[in-house]
Amino acid sequence: MRCETEELHAKDLADVAQTLPREMVAPFLSALPVERAADVLEYLNEELRTEVLETMSVRQAAELVTEMTPDDRADTLEGLEESSAEEILSEIPAEERAETEKLLAYDPASAGGLMTTEFVSVSQDTPVEEALAAVRRIARSERLEAMNTIYTTDAAGRVRGVMSLRELLAAPEGGKVSDVAWQEVQTVPVTADREEVARLTREYDLVAVPVVDDNGVIQGVVTVDDVIDALVEEHTEDVQRFGGMEALEMPYTQIGFLSMIGKRAPWLAALFLSEMLTTTAMGHFQGEIEKAVVLALFVPLIISSGGNSGSQATSLIIRSLALGEIKLRDWWRVALRELPSGLMLGAILGLLGIARILVWQHLGIGNYPHPNLVALTIGAALVGVVTFGSLAGSMLPFILQKLGFDPASASAPFVATLVDVTGLSIYFYVALLILRGTML
Amino acid sequence: MRCETEELHAKDLADVAQTLPREMVAPFLSALPVERAADVLEYLNEELRTEVLETMSVRQAAELVTEMTPDDRADTLEGLEESSAEEILSEIPAEERAETEKLLAYDPASAGGLMTTEFVSVSQDTPVEEALAAVRRIARSERLEAMNTIYTTDAAGRVRGVMSLRELLAAPEGGKVSDVAWQEVQTVPVTADREEVARLTREYDLVAVPVVDDNGVIQGVVTVDDVIDALVEEHTEDVQRFGGMEALEMPYTQIGFLSMIGKRAPWLAALFLSEMLTTTAMGHFQGEIEKAVVLALFVPLIISSGGNSGSQATSLIIRSLALGEIKLRDWWRVALRELPSGLMLGAILGLLGIARILVWQHLGIGNYPHPNLVALTIGAALVGVVTFGSLAGSMLPFILQKLGFDPASASAPFVATLVDVTGLSIYFYVALLILRGTML
Repeated sequence: MRCETEELHAKDLADVAQTLPREMVAPFLSALPVERAADVLEYLNEELRTEVLETMSVRQAAELVTEMTPDDRADTLEGLEESSAEEILSEIPAEERAETEKLLAYDPASAGGLMTTEFVSVSQDTPVEEALAAVRRIARSERLEAMNTIYTTDAAGRVRGVMSLRELLAAPEGGKVSDVAWQEVQTVPVTADREEVARLTREYDLVAVPVVDDNGVIQGVVTVDDVIDALVEEHTEDVQRFGGMEALEMPYTQIGFLSMIGKRAPWLAALFLSEMLTTTAMGHFQGEIEKAVVLALFVPLIISSGGNSGSQATSLIIRSLALGEIKLRDWWRVALRELPSGLMLGAILGLLGIARILVWQHLGIGNYPHPNLVALTIGAALVGVVTFGSLAGSMLPFILQKLGFDPASASAPFVATLVDVTGLSIYFYVALLILRGTML
Repeated sequence: MRCETEELHAKDLADVAQTLPREMVAPFLSALPVERAADVLEYLNEELRTEVLETMSVRQAAELVTEMTPDDRADTLEGLEESSAEEILSEIPAEERAETEKLLAYDPASAGGLMTTEFVSVSQDTPVEEALAAVRRIARSERLEAMNTIYTTDAAGRVRGVMSLRELLAAPEGGKVSDVAWQEVQTVPVTADREEVARLTREYDLVAVPVVDDNGVIQGVVTVDDVIDALVEEHTEDVQRFGGMEALEMPYTQIGFLSMIGKRAPWLAALFLSEMLTTTAMGHFQGEIEKAVVLALFVPLIISSGGNSGSQATSLIIRSLALGEIKLRDWWRVALRELPSGLMLGAILGLLGIARILVWQHLGIGNYPHPNLVALTIGAALVGVVTFGSLAGSMLPFILQKLGFDPASASAPFVATLVDVTGLSIYFYVALLILRGTML
């Protein structure tokens, strides 16, 4: 089985394939043993994999796809045009076809969509030596992905226990597997979100999570490599959404120009339309600006400070909610924390702002009328705006979660827009309060 | 060994411990068998773990810590006050102490800092049956974390091959382990960054990554659970840094008030000081604003649009670089992509802006002099500012990487600040160009 020396990992062969001219990839795969070619196919990037399969004959593609692990087979077919996928599906053996169709029916972001249907389970009454012999037999005859963990089941097929291959090896001879297996098994329903699967894997240090139906019967297993892929995808999506766009859901280098515009323009336009309120707000204070143009000069400085403190608070709360450190009901605890934080941060920026105006005035660079009053206005407005920014930024993820959205859809530009509009009003009302009778 | 029925996972016992009054946690742990208590200790959050160990007698703490896996032992001691850590270290057996001191010497964010020193390796000449017997013996006598993978070594102790426990089980009897093992082994040096370890784990679907010294001699193994923890930590740090602050490096709920201010205020102040340039820039155009106050009303709208498109571009490039989809040398490819994207996105927003002004004017809500020229100014400025935002936002991560910083330290507020200052100048120069002779 492993006679060739210097065997490369399929991932390295995939890297080689990716440097070949496009039209050479299919012949390259054909030159490999089919099992090996299927392995390599799994490691190709989605775009190339799709292209290669669509240039092959349906029969050849079906042969390759049949050899893939069930979860990767489903993922691969999901990436193809529906008609090609159906053609290929119709050519693969009935058993694999049924299995694949079942997996394709699950949401790709759910436990069902991540799981593989090949795993090892034994009845809980099986003697240890018999289980071990069975595992060796399976290990020799099939290539199962999820073999580091063995599940024990009752007569109805419900999961009753779990043990690692190592624990089975270490088990005293003469006993039953139920003596060895851990009886508290962490399972997820087929419909569980992949974030839930990731959370269990992380918290319990698992290498595989069993996926069960409503009756507790095991349907498949999510292996840790798929959990890692899901985590990395979530990470990318979170950063992109926090950056103020829809998640691309494919590599930047592979997405088409118009698709990318489609992910960016709607959010940009929505933010633009909301931000138009700043023009309305400023129009409301046009008389004041005409009387004291100096007020306009500080607008970007003040509103951006509110947006920045809001962006900080939002990033903190998004991750804290995602990691389960805080729950929805903790919103008031967070508010009670962000209020003094905002006041403190606002005071720091306010002092910097006051110092800037007074020093500039002293050096003769700035030349504002009533410099002390202007400085006081800027300082007080910063305290107000930064405090509002911290509060609004920290509450936004809670509000989104409460409304049934993912808290991670709160983005830095979204928070900045929210704070810009309110920040302007805070600023001009503070100015009216302090400068009325002198400049206004 | 596993006689108790209904055994709970250590993580669940840790959850129980975390709901107890603080002073009850140490007695609760004392009531458990020491091996089990050590397991539970590993799953407590860092703050509670530190507190519990510091309230115990040094001898009791040392006994518990000795039972932990080497990597968790090092992590735990790293969390303690240096003096307590040294007291405890001096009480643990010499072998474990030496091992722990070695691990403590590595950077916690490096492969050396993540690895455990307990793993299974056999000489490459070992017969399969003998290796299997050895693995069974080890599995029965010790609790090794990294037992799903077995490494083969040459006479000098250098890693020569790798096989999974399953592959060893499946191996034909009568052969040597070198016939079974894969000869292409992915290893990392002890100094490798944890992101490199994560990348290998993800790309090759590994459950353990061997860590080697300069001579290729295996020093330890990073297990996949630690890779997942590292990925999740990186995720949190990335989001927080993208939000415009220093990474907290501990849960939001656990960090002290002043420590949190210390993570937020410096960035906020630095952004504030840079953003002061907007006041200077606007001061430069004070004469124009006095002549046409209407120009000031659109300032927040225009500069925020540039910041938003920049934030989108930055989030895309940060992740694309982190995933290795693009390299530093691809900067010009990205620039060639972001230039038309920015023009297109700017044109969309520009048209929205023009429509807004003209419709408002038509409805009699807005009442600007020279509405068509103002609309043209806003539209043209938006194209310029959004294009500049996309370009600047996409180039920033490359520039940071080129300068030796982590590209992920580019934050949304940082990009917004950069674009605000330039965006203002673009806006006012466009205004001068279009409105000179009429309003200006």
